[in-house]
Amino acid sequence: MKAAQSPGKVYLVGAGPGASDLITVRGQRLLEQAQVVLHDALVDPQMLAWCKQATLFAVGKRCGKHSCAQTFINKRLVDAAMRHKVVVRLKGGDPMMFGRADEEIRALQAAGIDYEVVPGVTAALAASASLGQSLTLRGAARSVAFCTLAKAEEAQLAQLPQADTLAIYMGRRQAAGIAQSLLAQGRPADWPVCVVESVSTAQERRLFITLDALAQGAASHWLSTDAPALLLLGAVFGNREQHASVLADGWLRA
Amino acid sequence: MKAAQSPGKVYLVGAGPGASDLITVRGQRLLEQAQVVLHDALVDPQMLAWCKQATLFAVGKRCGKHSCAQTFINKRLVDAAMRHKVVVRLKGGDPMMFGRADEEIRALQAAGIDYEVVPGVTAALAASASLGQSLTLRGAARSVAFCTLAKAEEAQLAQLPQADTLAIYMGRRQAAGIAQSLLAQGRPADWPVCVVESVSTAQERRLFITLDALAQGAASHWLSTDAPALLLLGAVFGNREQHASVLADGWLRA
Repeated sequence: MKAAQSPGKVYLVGAGPGASDLITVRGQRLLEQAQVVLHDALVDPQMLAWCKQATLFAVGKRCGKHSCAQTFINKRLVDAAMRHKVVVRLKGGDPMMFGRADEEIRALQAAGIDYEVVPGVTAALAASASLGQSLTLRGAARSVAFCTLAKAEEAQLAQLPQADTLAIYMGRRQAAGIAQSLLAQGRPADWPVCVVESVSTAQERRLFITLDALAQGAASHWLSTDAPALLLLGAVFGNREQHASVLADGWLRA
Repeated sequence: MKAAQSPGKVYLVGAGPGASDLITVRGQRLLEQAQVVLHDALVDPQMLAWCKQATLFAVGKRCGKHSCAQTFINKRLVDAAMRHKVVVRLKGGDPMMFGRADEEIRALQAAGIDYEVVPGVTAALAASASLGQSLTLRGAARSVAFCTLAKAEEAQLAQLPQADTLAIYMGRRQAAGIAQSLLAQGRPADWPVCVVESVSTAQERRLFITLDALAQGAASHWLSTDAPALLLLGAVFGNREQHASVLADGWLRA
């Protein structure tokens, strides 16, 4: 293929939490216009049906497995923009949280390539919607913190944020350790926890437990090894009446 | 109008941060199907063009002005579902953060009306996309907290969450007080702050300042009195080279 006169534009698009129709309208329209789409491994195949005209590249990282090196992704984005007008980098969730978009943006800037970021629905908000339980509650929970942790290092566990509600992304392997840290920081043993797997997809599952049970490994056997999981913690998840319809999924007592 | 045999369903839909095409595809489709739409005051009129078939009611609260009582909104939702199949409650941003969705859900549950929440892009993620600066950064910022404050009460200022990056919603009036609290909590005087107004709309404006300048009221004169504003704080916003293109908007030095 011959290089175009001037480089195209790269759109870093948030694919949203999982369900194909939870992408934004702007994101969908860009998929329809793209000549090249570089997408994460976790992106719903239904979403890719909107860009049948495009050349697709699966470049995503999936919980450390089958990962493409970030520098390879960066180079591929630059190369694609040198040859095509509309290049979409489709990233799970929102591109600007836990997504290494920064490295991709820096590579595009260094190569003089125009870019635009299209935000997406992040998993914690989709989980909250699915549960019918808001993350904040007038008078009771004014703040919510989103965080992730690198591979189970003690030092990082001590750096957990402090807020009324916590949403911990990619915390599957460290779930028990995180809970132990939170107990050590003074969170109550019966602090409500909701573990949500494969948010917004047909495979979505929820587990309602207490912080104490999480610390004792209650989620370890329940969680799948190959699905994305989110830990939600906070008093707002303790309203058992509200969750009556989902309690059948499995409520454990510590 | 005659009441239907069985009540309809209420969809609490996140309208997203402002731009009409930042609603989700699912949200857009529901607007196209709705018989009744109850929307916040801040919702983009272009978005309402998707539901020309529906009866519209502006019920939203706008920074305390022209607010409908929440109990009135709740009643209206229940009444609409008694008469129509598809009722959309279109809420600015994401419905489950700072949105009082909980009260609406409880009213629907009490009336035995089916509901579903459709998540949305929250303002902080749209601001981050617009700035081209991610809220988290590998190795440097692992957590981000979102919060809001009730009317400038000292006690609540002390309850600010702790995380690497902070996003404070609806903090226009309390901006200086919040900054003073953060300084008292040990945040550095030169902690980078980005104030973003009317995120994702044609009226979007940004101000890059330091925490110290914010504490001294630097944002007070700059902010509009009738536009939604977001305070973003954290080391990630200190990368001035990255923001070279927006610095012309106004960088203040304390």
